[in-house]
Amino acid sequence: MSADFLPVVRTVAELRAQVRAWRGAGDTVAMTPTMGALHEGHLSLVRLAKARARRVVASIFVNPTQFGPNEDFDRYPRNEAGDAELLASAGCDLLYAPDVSQIYPAGFSTKVTISGVSEPLDGAARPGHFDGVATVVAKLLNQAQPDVAVFGEKDYQQLQLIRRLALDLDLPVEIIGAPTARAEDGLALSSRNAYLTPEQRIIAGRLNVVLADAVSRLKAGDSVEKVEATGRAALERQGFERIDYFEVRHALDLSHPGPGVLSVPGRVLAAAFLGKTRLIDNMAV
Amino acid sequence: MSADFLPVVRTVAELRAQVRAWRGAGDTVAMTPTMGALHEGHLSLVRLAKARARRVVASIFVNPTQFGPNEDFDRYPRNEAGDAELLASAGCDLLYAPDVSQIYPAGFSTKVTISGVSEPLDGAARPGHFDGVATVVAKLLNQAQPDVAVFGEKDYQQLQLIRRLALDLDLPVEIIGAPTARAEDGLALSSRNAYLTPEQRIIAGRLNVVLADAVSRLKAGDSVEKVEATGRAALERQGFERIDYFEVRHALDLSHPGPGVLSVPGRVLAAAFLGKTRLIDNMAV
Repeated sequence: MSADFLPVVRTVAELRAQVRAWRGAGDTVAMTPTMGALHEGHLSLVRLAKARARRVVASIFVNPTQFGPNEDFDRYPRNEAGDAELLASAGCDLLYAPDVSQIYPAGFSTKVTISGVSEPLDGAARPGHFDGVATVVAKLLNQAQPDVAVFGEKDYQQLQLIRRLALDLDLPVEIIGAPTARAEDGLALSSRNAYLTPEQRIIAGRLNVVLADAVSRLKAGDSVEKVEATGRAALERQGFERIDYFEVRHALDLSHPGPGVLSVPGRVLAAAFLGKTRLIDNMAV
Repeated sequence: MSADFLPVVRTVAELRAQVRAWRGAGDTVAMTPTMGALHEGHLSLVRLAKARARRVVASIFVNPTQFGPNEDFDRYPRNEAGDAELLASAGCDLLYAPDVSQIYPAGFSTKVTISGVSEPLDGAARPGHFDGVATVVAKLLNQAQPDVAVFGEKDYQQLQLIRRLALDLDLPVEIIGAPTARAEDGLALSSRNAYLTPEQRIIAGRLNVVLADAVSRLKAGDSVEKVEATGRAALERQGFERIDYFEVRHALDLSHPGPGVLSVPGRVLAAAFLGKTRLIDNMAV
């Protein structure tokens, strides 16, 4: 087997047979669910997974139910052959690339809803998005039954939602958050960065700078409301065309920390558009 | 260990440790979730479970989220010591009797909703009931991780909902339906029968007779709508005080079979009150 060859399975039965074989041999198993269009950020998840378990299965499934009607499901980039090569190079042992029929067979009727953590920010900006995420992640984790699963902090609200999901539904898996991988100018790596024009790409690189500045101001004792207003104004000044949110939140459940000086573990989160491309990023306080 | 001694665990950690020990010894595991107040019907589930797996864990949890605000959560009968004796006598190996904090810890935020099968009949009569059932059953099955789980056909809509749940969320468990256990006069055994006065108990015994008559009429070619009207009238004549439904449904997904002669696998289902006690029953066509 060459270093860059990656076995691919497309059905739950094949996936479970491989995981069962690994378990039978005494190996632990990690999973990294993705939507493909892989970049260095995803590969850092795979490497972290490989450090935490003997075997790593990555999934690629562009989940239609987490896209809104006017979002980019159809144009979301797809390149399975290229993705498979990258996964193999990062130490992944198996690619699970199910057809839609393996995930949503005829008669599918179930929805998993997480209240609280899923409601503000991307939950408010993208109605139904997190129901789609929670449902498909519950399914993927039950299909593979890994010991650990790795998700990126880049999608911080999603990560906290998945932690809640695993806890609340007693999924027998440990959820691990991986630090956001960034380009040289600090832009959080994202498959959607590929949509950006060269001009937009330059502006995009300021989002992380504005977030880091907000973190500094909060640490220096500026009030939550002042930091939020300053951050929004800075993004507008940098050329972002529409700002969905620029907010300071409780790090754990994304509830509002209240006005004044931040007194709880915090997270600053932002979502803003350049043209039709929506970028998100976040940083710990 | 005497034949009637039954080990009890109250936490997920203890439950999983026991199931893991059984699996390690090569044993298969079955689960029968209950709300306690056990009768011969539950014991028939335990016996069926024991026939399908080497080890049987029964759970007793009176789930608050599946009771409506004006339903009988507070007065629902509870008798753990008596239940444990009965379970042991039927071959059960372990009782899982969690505190509410093991099921709904602080911050619990997740709801599992099944559309379609959960919507008519008891779903219409008891808003939120089946969300509560789906959520707690997903949890209990993930907590115990049995190979098979047994549910009674007495709660037929619940059984079909749980089949859908397990399929849709890829729960790695086989769902088994068990035939309804009945008293000598055919009354479906139910913990709620204990609420009946002697006079009500006599009337209750007619519900299954009216259902069986509906099945005969459907088999003889009577139309769905005629059989439903005849059944409702018969229940009223017998002294039932309020009829939630008396309906012919598609056996699989509980959709309406359409008017005229029944041309699909059918199920006749009824729910009716005697005083404050709500009785349900159903039969296959």
